[in-house]
Amino acid sequence: MPHISLGNEEFGIRSLFMYRPETGRPMSMLADVLLRGPSALPRGERELIAAYVSSLNDCSYCTASHSAFAAAQLPEGMTLVDQVCADPDTAPVTPKLAALLRIAGAVQQSGKAVRAEDIELARKEGATDLEIHDTVLIAAVFCMTNRYVDGLATNVRADPAAYAKIAPVIINNGYMAILGSAGSPQAAQ
Amino acid sequence: MPHISLGNEEFGIRSLFMYRPETGRPMSMLADVLLRGPSALPRGERELIAAYVSSLNDCSYCTASHSAFAAAQLPEGMTLVDQVCADPDTAPVTPKLAALLRIAGAVQQSGKAVRAEDIELARKEGATDLEIHDTVLIAAVFCMTNRYVDGLATNVRADPAAYAKIAPVIINNGYMAILGSAGSPQAAQ
Repeated sequence: MPHISLGNEEFGIRSLFMYRPETGRPMSMLADVLLRGPSALPRGERELIAAYVSSLNDCSYCTASHSAFAAAQLPEGMTLVDQVCADPDTAPVTPKLAALLRIAGAVQQSGKAVRAEDIELARKEGATDLEIHDTVLIAAVFCMTNRYVDGLATNVRADPAAYAKIAPVIINNGYMAILGSAGSPQAAQ
Repeated sequence: MPHISLGNEEFGIRSLFMYRPETGRPMSMLADVLLRGPSALPRGERELIAAYVSSLNDCSYCTASHSAFAAAQLPEGMTLVDQVCADPDTAPVTPKLAALLRIAGAVQQSGKAVRAEDIELARKEGATDLEIHDTVLIAAVFCMTNRYVDGLATNVRADPAAYAKIAPVIINNGYMAILGSAGSPQAAQ
């Protein structure tokens, strides 16, 4: 049961966005730009970074939902997501993605845990500055989101398969769709 | 020196917002709503929570800047900010703010570190659900911002007094002003 009265029966981040759309709107915009906006990193790989960081933060809701969104956008599906969350060093990903996942794992610990050699390795494996930037910010964003979702003890869906059903909505309509009618500027008045 | 080429000589979060205004815009909007928007929590106390969490995350840039913004908006000034960052349990704050700082400290560790009794204590001391919500989100937002700023090794100002000079700009014009001309929709094209 959530720590505060949210006034709705929704789950995870959606219950918080409905409670406080004034903060939900910029947070959805940020997720949309980072996870779905123009980027050389495929959307499935960006969702994989989100799922991996959420698993390190032990956030059930975000791990399950972003794992489903990653699986739906990666040719290897949930098998690869599970391998990366279990151990990114042995998962069958490209050397570039492995280097980016290592940076994301460092960010999860602390900003200062990112070493110059982690950046150098990613660059050597073909990552651009923008891809390194976006990896750091995706990892940082989920260190926020995981704490927000669990810090207020929001509801988690009992059935993990339910997240796979939401995936097409996010993939087709984006994160602003989470807000529903609460996302319109009128609703904030 | 920053880990990536940001194309500007700015400091901390401003250097990142100038590099990537597409993500800087929603992040500034979020900071503006949470730290300056309508709330029963005084702006100085919200900035104090931001400074405290940033100090726990050992982020020099965010601690120095939000300490300056808090000090400029609290009657007790920097003395209180320093006392809270040193030990919030012995700092001379109201029992309600002490309880909210305890929640923020838990969020800094992990969302799951927030206990039902922490929430109960805050409520007993007069905190509303919205104030508890905003405290959790402010703490979570700075767990993101601190990792973003330090994860890319952005520049820190050598002179701490420089942050006090920026305080009136933030207090009078808000966080969107950090973006400067990069914040206009045209600049994102």
